Amino acid sequence: MQDHVLVVGAGLAGATAARILAESNLRVIVVERRKHVGGNCYDYTDENGITVHLYGPHIFHTNSREVWNFVNRFCEFRYYQHRVLSFVEGRFVPFPINRDTICEVFGVNIGVEEVEDFLKDEVRRSNFNDPPKNFRDVVVSQVGERLYELFFKNYTIKQWNRDPEELSPDVAKRIPVRYGRDDRYFSDRYQGIPARGYTHLVERILDHPKISIVTNMDYFELRDHVKPKLTVYTGELDRFFDCVYGKLEYRSLRLVFKTYDMEYYQPVAVVNYPNDYDWTRITEFKHMTGERSSRTTVLFEYPSAEGEPFYVVLTRDNIERREKYMEEVKKLEKSGEYIFVGRLAEYLYYNMDQVIEASIRKVGEWLKNRTG
Amino acid sequence: MQDHVLVVGAGLAGATAARILAESNLRVIVVERRKHVGGNCYDYTDENGITVHLYGPHIFHTNSREVWNFVNRFCEFRYYQHRVLSFVEGRFVPFPINRDTICEVFGVNIGVEEVEDFLKDEVRRSNFNDPPKNFRDVVVSQVGERLYELFFKNYTIKQWNRDPEELSPDVAKRIPVRYGRDDRYFSDRYQGIPARGYTHLVERILDHPKISIVTNMDYFELRDHVKPKLTVYTGELDRFFDCVYGKLEYRSLRLVFKTYDMEYYQPVAVVNYPNDYDWTRITEFKHMTGERSSRTTVLFEYPSAEGEPFYVVLTRDNIERREKYMEEVKKLEKSGEYIFVGRLAEYLYYNMDQVIEASIRKVGEWLKNRTG
Repeated sequence: MQDHVLVVGAGLAGATAARILAESNLRVIVVERRKHVGGNCYDYTDENGITVHLYGPHIFHTNSREVWNFVNRFCEFRYYQHRVLSFVEGRFVPFPINRDTICEVFGVNIGVEEVEDFLKDEVRRSNFNDPPKNFRDVVVSQVGERLYELFFKNYTIKQWNRDPEELSPDVAKRIPVRYGRDDRYFSDRYQGIPARGYTHLVERILDHPKISIVTNMDYFELRDHVKPKLTVYTGELDRFFDCVYGKLEYRSLRLVFKTYDMEYYQPVAVVNYPNDYDWTRITEFKHMTGERSSRTTVLFEYPSAEGEPFYVVLTRDNIERREKYMEEVKKLEKSGEYIFVGRLAEYLYYNMDQVIEASIRKVGEWLKNRTG
Repeated sequence: MQDHVLVVGAGLAGATAARILAESNLRVIVVERRKHVGGNCYDYTDENGITVHLYGPHIFHTNSREVWNFVNRFCEFRYYQHRVLSFVEGRFVPFPINRDTICEVFGVNIGVEEVEDFLKDEVRRSNFNDPPKNFRDVVVSQVGERLYELFFKNYTIKQWNRDPEELSPDVAKRIPVRYGRDDRYFSDRYQGIPARGYTHLVERILDHPKISIVTNMDYFELRDHVKPKLTVYTGELDRFFDCVYGKLEYRSLRLVFKTYDMEYYQPVAVVNYPNDYDWTRITEFKHMTGERSSRTTVLFEYPSAEGEPFYVVLTRDNIERREKYMEEVKKLEKSGEYIFVGRLAEYLYYNMDQVIEASIRKVGEWLKNRTG
């Protein structure tokens, strides 16, 4: 097995790496702790024949033609454009905030050329620290107090269990605001959903004669028994180093699926609930997949500190810990025997396309150094 | 890894063994040469949304309550009863031969109580060796020359590439004939199709915390590097022993799937073509699965000597070779380190239920010897 490459994790980071290495004629073994491939973009057909995303909604969007071409080698895409509504004061309004959101919330009727000035007036009327001392200041300085209160304050508390006034202003330097009427959640050039699902996409990426896949196998059970030529690690960063510098925090979700005997539950795929109820959002998958059915399955997301690691938590402590671990990573990567890539292994808030991009880049560099 | 059990092959034999061993608290690793689990009963949804059986139609039928209870632990069944028509002289007639087949073919109208005498007359008018010298004699002595010619002669030539007059009379001592009107292909007490497919059934059998699955990995790549506590081998019998006693022959199939823009292609799931065309049968999966669609996918089967091993070929040579290999198997099994089970590993024409039954029995014996 000394000539083998070991890839730890069969999500997008691991699958992309495995594919590129296999196409470079290396024998690859992918080890996955879960019973399925696909990582957190895993989807499947539920008992009602409706495709659901088991770990929350995933919409593929990228500005990278390289990434788009890569995924399109393996599957067809449905050219879905994601739209999100926010449920505020009993009404569904477009989110991110755009001209229509402002008209709905303030009961005004302004043209797109008036939006910028309208928001400036709002900001002028508001209290905040300049320069910003916390996340609240960042938001209020861009949209004013009223929109902050309606869309950001309580959502942040729900999602992160932290008051925006305690959060560093670095969490988000700019919040997305549209002066026009574009109501799409993403404005990337390429957007869509794999026509036969993400699991199918990942299976196809992994479908190569030189790739073997091991499911339900913890890498840490194996680590001391194997000596691969290269290990591509996509698991939790802290766990690789036995948490020597302390545990890195993750935010998780309690995911509750419900099926209703109705064609559609809500007008779009995702509705945010910044202020009401305890869930942050409800996802109705049929809007994304285009499936037709007399029933519909929706997903309620309740943020939680416990559970599968979903989101990195960018507090000062975590960022400092990450730096220490990344020093170790650099040493290992320098040896040519390891690559660390992905949301968990780099402790970064990567989108799907960024994960693929990073994997293509890091494996490409490794291959170049090897032959160069 | 010395405490692990290695199961070679993720078909029904391997999955059943893995499950029982895992439930006996053993850590199991299943190694599968193909990229998917399920063995030859693997099914999947094609581009048209129709479930197809990639390696030919599989209908589950058993008289064993133990086997039925076992599979029902893992999935719901659709209580499908299999019916086959045979296309002879331009007409679809029931097969196996029953009262209605006889009426259709001979243009007579007889009651069920007259069938036995009718066939006796047919046999009396026919020429054959008694005792039978070959497979033709076996068939003709039961149904007469005309039914033999229409239903058995050319089908045997197509399926086995052998003239029935060259085949040993042991190939089939009795052929199924129904004196009544029962037109079901199987008369087992329990019949059906896994409601969500065979792949799903096998995945569920394998879905256990103590079972890891390796796909796209050839056992013979691993064999010299691992030392498991027990190896359950379900692969080709001759290959395990490097074909020291010669190769065992298998009959394979060239499988051609076609999708048509029509609701149904034929009146039942399977139509045999004993005399016309080069295929032996056409399968239309929607009849089994109950799926609704404006399109339909059908499968044409062309028997072939080359390809994946499907059917054992019970010639004298093969039977003698098998005996030699089975002597070796007995020795290995006696050591307590090996179990050989399944259609390929035992070189037996097992149905699915017989595979499961054999696996339950053999693993049960091994566990008993271990503790006893």
